[in-house]
Amino acid sequence: MTMMWNVPVKDIDAAIAPLRPDADSDDRLESFAVAAWSFLVEPGDRVAGALVRRFGAGEALSRVVARPAASSLADDELSAADVAEALARWEPRLETPALFRSLTSAATLGIRLVRDSDEFWPDGLIDLGDNGPRVLWVRGQVESLPQTSSSVAIVGARASTGYGEHVAMDFAAGFVSRGYAVVSGGAYGIDGMAHRAALACGGTTIAVMAGGLDNLYPSGHEELLKRIMNTGAVVSEVPPGGAPTRWRFLQRNRLIAAMAGGTVVIEAGYRSGSLNTATHARDLDRPLGVVPGPITSGQSAGCHRLLRTNPAAELVTSVADMVDLMSGSVSAEEFASRDSPETIRVLDALSSTPRELAAVAARSGLSEAQALVVLTALESEGRADQTGERWSRT
Amino acid sequence: MTMMWNVPVKDIDAAIAPLRPDADSDDRLESFAVAAWSFLVEPGDRVAGALVRRFGAGEALSRVVARPAASSLADDELSAADVAEALARWEPRLETPALFRSLTSAATLGIRLVRDSDEFWPDGLIDLGDNGPRVLWVRGQVESLPQTSSSVAIVGARASTGYGEHVAMDFAAGFVSRGYAVVSGGAYGIDGMAHRAALACGGTTIAVMAGGLDNLYPSGHEELLKRIMNTGAVVSEVPPGGAPTRWRFLQRNRLIAAMAGGTVVIEAGYRSGSLNTATHARDLDRPLGVVPGPITSGQSAGCHRLLRTNPAAELVTSVADMVDLMSGSVSAEEFASRDSPETIRVLDALSSTPRELAAVAARSGLSEAQALVVLTALESEGRADQTGERWSRT
Repeated sequence: MTMMWNVPVKDIDAAIAPLRPDADSDDRLESFAVAAWSFLVEPGDRVAGALVRRFGAGEALSRVVARPAASSLADDELSAADVAEALARWEPRLETPALFRSLTSAATLGIRLVRDSDEFWPDGLIDLGDNGPRVLWVRGQVESLPQTSSSVAIVGARASTGYGEHVAMDFAAGFVSRGYAVVSGGAYGIDGMAHRAALACGGTTIAVMAGGLDNLYPSGHEELLKRIMNTGAVVSEVPPGGAPTRWRFLQRNRLIAAMAGGTVVIEAGYRSGSLNTATHARDLDRPLGVVPGPITSGQSAGCHRLLRTNPAAELVTSVADMVDLMSGSVSAEEFASRDSPETIRVLDALSSTPRELAAVAARSGLSEAQALVVLTALESEGRADQTGERWSRT
Repeated sequence: MTMMWNVPVKDIDAAIAPLRPDADSDDRLESFAVAAWSFLVEPGDRVAGALVRRFGAGEALSRVVARPAASSLADDELSAADVAEALARWEPRLETPALFRSLTSAATLGIRLVRDSDEFWPDGLIDLGDNGPRVLWVRGQVESLPQTSSSVAIVGARASTGYGEHVAMDFAAGFVSRGYAVVSGGAYGIDGMAHRAALACGGTTIAVMAGGLDNLYPSGHEELLKRIMNTGAVVSEVPPGGAPTRWRFLQRNRLIAAMAGGTVVIEAGYRSGSLNTATHARDLDRPLGVVPGPITSGQSAGCHRLLRTNPAAELVTSVADMVDLMSGSVSAEEFASRDSPETIRVLDALSSTPRELAAVAARSGLSEAQALVVLTALESEGRADQTGERWSRT
């Protein structure tokens, strides 16, 4: 092969080599195709996912850029109508110059392309199926990309309160001390606090962006995101040059939920985007922990709404709760008082002043024989004392 | 009949008349027997309940004071062993002088005896079956005794926080404004705040005591409890002279839960007695609302524990939530965004600067035809503007 999508292979090699320094030429070609797909389609494009799965990224791209008849790509999974609609929506982006600007920008910024066949691919993304990305654009440490078994997502309101920030910090520190990587969205408020606390504790943290990594968003977190790259990673499924649109934020939230072994929502307004992350966690059967707060706080209203209406949402009050939830070891607690009714009543009837058995029986509403059984047991537990014929509480 | 339990009927008439001014002589005799039973047994005595149901209070009392063979009182429901054990536990209290001291004390304090056959008997207590009381000792307005359809219990920690007190006040006021009577336990903290707020709003409130009404408990609430009596009632199933033991507190909690149409727990420590009231509410199939709070507050730890471990506990954040719960009208909320993915993406692609259709299509990752459909719909909703060939966001 000397060309792909009318691009000479040597140009492809030159564009991809900085993004995948260890790649051989086959891998560079396929990686170019994967990058092209991430440029052509919006996150979550099921038809693109199905075609790439069926043909491989390179072959699927070659077929699509040839503007085929929709019926030639249809099969049992994809109807001709689905394919026709997809070809039509990809058409406006079927041009190579903007893609090469993305790749050049990526190389300049030291961005790596990580593919779903790579060692460090986050295993949780596999659960997204055809809706999931085949490639991540990564700034920072590729080997820090999270595995679900040892990562947790902490998300929440941008307009966080002091309470929420305190809890986010506390949770992030607790997860780090238990060896978890902290995944979040890099936003102001809860996200930022979770990242900062993870870094402060020497932990690994991953920020998942909605737009291209040439534009670190929000700009007020540029410094924080760069610190994250030193030991963790800032990642996106959108190529450099891509704006952080509302759609991409919603899709970014599904990446956060899928990457992590569980998601904790710390604070969320009644219509917070964090509720969207929570919905993804539920759809993926990932444990979803929700921290309650004062009902007088609007920034906990979304958390309470989740707890009321989402059967998958579990109330968590500590890192231990969340770890239990992720390990599937949560069991119903024992509420029952350990003392029997008779024991409670005999204890009620005792005081530090010794009383005769008859008085204890009358006060506890038990026969003398019944009271004596309980008293003897209490004495053996060191909870009652017998002095002569009288009984007292210890 | 001239005697009951070796007491001349004229003495019975004299003792009961002040407690039931409208009673005829048959009623006075039976009421004396009911009062005697409440004196003989601890709250929740199932055997006593069954015998009173089988024979009537007077006949059951007459049989028991005759020290019968246990087998003579056994039947399909009560084994001879159950009866023998019960007779043994009642034996230490089988004496009339202390009972008469109770009745005299009750008359002095203006206490009324309200029986389960009376008009104002709280209908919810019927659900307690044989474990429930047949009589209430009442100080205040007998006609204020609550019906489940128009009453709610507000309970919580004695060591309440400012947050909990604020919420208790807010809830009590909200319930009163909707016509509900507020039932609680008269304790410091949440209970007291709920009673005070109900009174301040001109509502009816009922305090249920664990001990006899001659000893208003806690003493620091004597003034409050007396104010409650002016329009509401202070009630107990324990006769005057009975101490507020731990057992009676636990049993008192079941009365609160049974009387009210639903129970709200506002704040509760991890081992709070309010959790016991909540358990009773659940056992009685009464709606159980629980208010969350900061996870940093120990006084909300019991609430969070309930929400985590008690499937009947529902998180409530407002009076409206609780009213919905009690009316059985809670339905799952609609979380989904009302905009389709395509609409979100087209809105993302628009700005206040008009753009050509091709640009909108490329930015949104849709075909021009698809983008146009969405743009037309948005225009009709007043969310997009067309100027010549260009589109903008309104």
